[in-house]
Amino acid sequence: MSYQIAVLAGDGIGPEVMAEARKVLTEVERRFDLNIEYSEYDVGGIAIDNHGSPLPGATLKGCEAADAILFGSVGGPKWEHLPPNEQPERGALLPLRGHFDLFCNLRPAKLHTGLEHMSPLRSDISSRGFDVLCVRELTGGIYFGKPKGRQGEGENEEAFDTMRYSRREIERIARIAFTAAQGRNKKVTSVDKANVLACSVLWREVVELVAKDFPDVELEHIYIDNATMQLLRRPNEFDVMLCSNLFGDIISDEIAMLTGSMGLLSSASLNSSGFGMYEPAGGSAPDIAGKGIANPVAQILSAALLLRHSLKLDEAADAIERAVSKALANGYLTGELLDESERGNAKTTAQMGDYIAQAV
Amino acid sequence: MSYQIAVLAGDGIGPEVMAEARKVLTEVERRFDLNIEYSEYDVGGIAIDNHGSPLPGATLKGCEAADAILFGSVGGPKWEHLPPNEQPERGALLPLRGHFDLFCNLRPAKLHTGLEHMSPLRSDISSRGFDVLCVRELTGGIYFGKPKGRQGEGENEEAFDTMRYSRREIERIARIAFTAAQGRNKKVTSVDKANVLACSVLWREVVELVAKDFPDVELEHIYIDNATMQLLRRPNEFDVMLCSNLFGDIISDEIAMLTGSMGLLSSASLNSSGFGMYEPAGGSAPDIAGKGIANPVAQILSAALLLRHSLKLDEAADAIERAVSKALANGYLTGELLDESERGNAKTTAQMGDYIAQAV
Ligand SMILES: CC(C)[C@H](C(=O)O)[C@@H](O)C(=O)O
Ligand SMILES: CC(C)[C@H](C(=O)O)[C@@H](O)C(=O)O
Repeated sequence: MSYQIAVLAGDGIGPEVMAEARKVLTEVERRFDLNIEYSEYDVGGIAIDNHGSPLPGATLKGCEAADAILFGSVGGPKWEHLPPNEQPERGALLPLRGHFDLFCNLRPAKLHTGLEHMSPLRSDISSRGFDVLCVRELTGGIYFGKPKGRQGEGENEEAFDTMRYSRREIERIARIAFTAAQGRNKKVTSVDKANVLACSVLWREVVELVAKDFPDVELEHIYIDNATMQLLRRPNEFDVMLCSNLFGDIISDEIAMLTGSMGLLSSASLNSSGFGMYEPAGGSAPDIAGKGIANPVAQILSAALLLRHSLKLDEAADAIERAVSKALANGYLTGELLDESERGNAKTTAQMGDYIAQAV
Repeated sequence: MSYQIAVLAGDGIGPEVMAEARKVLTEVERRFDLNIEYSEYDVGGIAIDNHGSPLPGATLKGCEAADAILFGSVGGPKWEHLPPNEQPERGALLPLRGHFDLFCNLRPAKLHTGLEHMSPLRSDISSRGFDVLCVRELTGGIYFGKPKGRQGEGENEEAFDTMRYSRREIERIARIAFTAAQGRNKKVTSVDKANVLACSVLWREVVELVAKDFPDVELEHIYIDNATMQLLRRPNEFDVMLCSNLFGDIISDEIAMLTGSMGLLSSASLNSSGFGMYEPAGGSAPDIAGKGIANPVAQILSAALLLRHSLKLDEAADAIERAVSKALANGYLTGELLDESERGNAKTTAQMGDYIAQAV
């Protein structure tokens, strides 16, 4: 079988962690007798520098020709003077999501055994562990709703954004959350603000309807403000969290931080035909770029998600995930996951990649 | 001097903690030779039961005739079957905020010395303490923006909400945040989502302009998703957080939970003429209502805020706050703030009120 992956390494630690993901994928190709072709394109800050745009036409074309996108990370101090909505992150991510209708964002976050102390939570809370999948709607809501803009003058000048959701949009993301819950702990927590937002009232209605098709899955509703709080006290009681675009942005980042190990978290953004974009949850970390100390695990796990969701290569994906678990269980860790006293045992970016590739 | 306070005790623990606040206020009247008149009105669930509406006309009239509103808490299981936007919380709070133009919400949250272990944060983080004032815009944004509603049919039916902010609205709340910061640690962190929202781009512009009038105050901008994360790692680095209505709802609840002692947190909602509504941050806690174990401190501190902001009685407010600090420092605590092994020393609701009244 032959596949085509568009590789968008981006800025900061993007290229160096991407190199390790490629190492692991090469080993997977050998072991599972696959033929994957890679085409590399500029994205983010480097694309602004080289082509004057964070998402050049050639990059978009290359993604169109591929079966999936493996994305690194974008952004850095060099481009922070740009207006917020021209910066690398926004200028690359939102158009990619919109163009490919990547409405489904999966952000799994779990506290790995042995890494509980990395969590910013009190030890009696983190010791209970947690394993949450945030299912975030990614192409609707206030991110893309029209009208959006400005009007008026002087102190009456005003800006406006529109949050908008249709039954169809809510239903398709809700089905994904319930289906995912069936393969996990059979609980969906739907996050909304139905006491204030008309969108949330419709959201609740549709989610209730979808829930009827999944009688084996428990459904609870929670307001976004309360969700932010309960995650701090009892993260272990959540399984799948179903969120609109804006609330998912907030909740997924909160949970990611609660693991204390962003360098291990990957995410998938999918459309209805299985095409998807896969990326680490952490940023481009310009402060440690080029030092060979960045954790490549999130990028490697993103590759695993790509194999599973877009290429339907479950066994190959499992093999990568098992190899990563083995590395972590054997204390094979980059420095940021180690106490200061143990930093001497820190593995480099390349050592992590080598170990995981070999363990595949 | 003679003053008029509208007392809206509400549901759950509302009436019993309000009784203690009244006790303390009576003592303050005596000590500072004041004459405060109290008029009590139904609000929330009890108002639905007695008058068919969470905010009856008589209650609103009573509030109009007063110098300030002392609010307890509303809501409970009895009214949870109602549609979210008819429930006691929403049905009482939003109309009150809108009617009196209470655009400025102050939610102070600090980790009290000796109570660091209550925080859900890891001990090395909580031991550094924190003291944050959330300044939340309360009458604009997506809560009140028009149009808001539904249109279309079948799976194309859609709901929509409008987030809307004018320069004037942003400027008046920003000035309050900067002024507050001048009396504190001289730092304002403005929370937005300027990489996505037109409202946030205007928000940043106006906040930058206002900042010029406060050269002694440091200003930083942070995206809401990142704010949610950084509060978990380094809450001690924040001073005043300036937020729009929706983001303030989320951030203030996250910070409240980070203290681990919601029963100590009060809030003020003010309009431009000094009229205001004062209420505890916690809810009506129906599970412990009527047991005499609820913590009255948040309600008592709400009364102190009322004296300071609406009645301009700074000394009387200080006296209450000092009395509360004395109680806490002397280990005078309700049960939820004590380790299980020390619950035998827990003070009742009434004991707390007596002690604080006497210490005024
Ligand atoms: C960069 C930004 C537009 C983006 C978002 O808000 O979706 C990011 O925060 C994310 O979560 O991927
Ligand atoms: C009850 C609800 C409408 C309200 C809000 O969202 O403002 C509450 O959460 C609050 O923060 O006071």
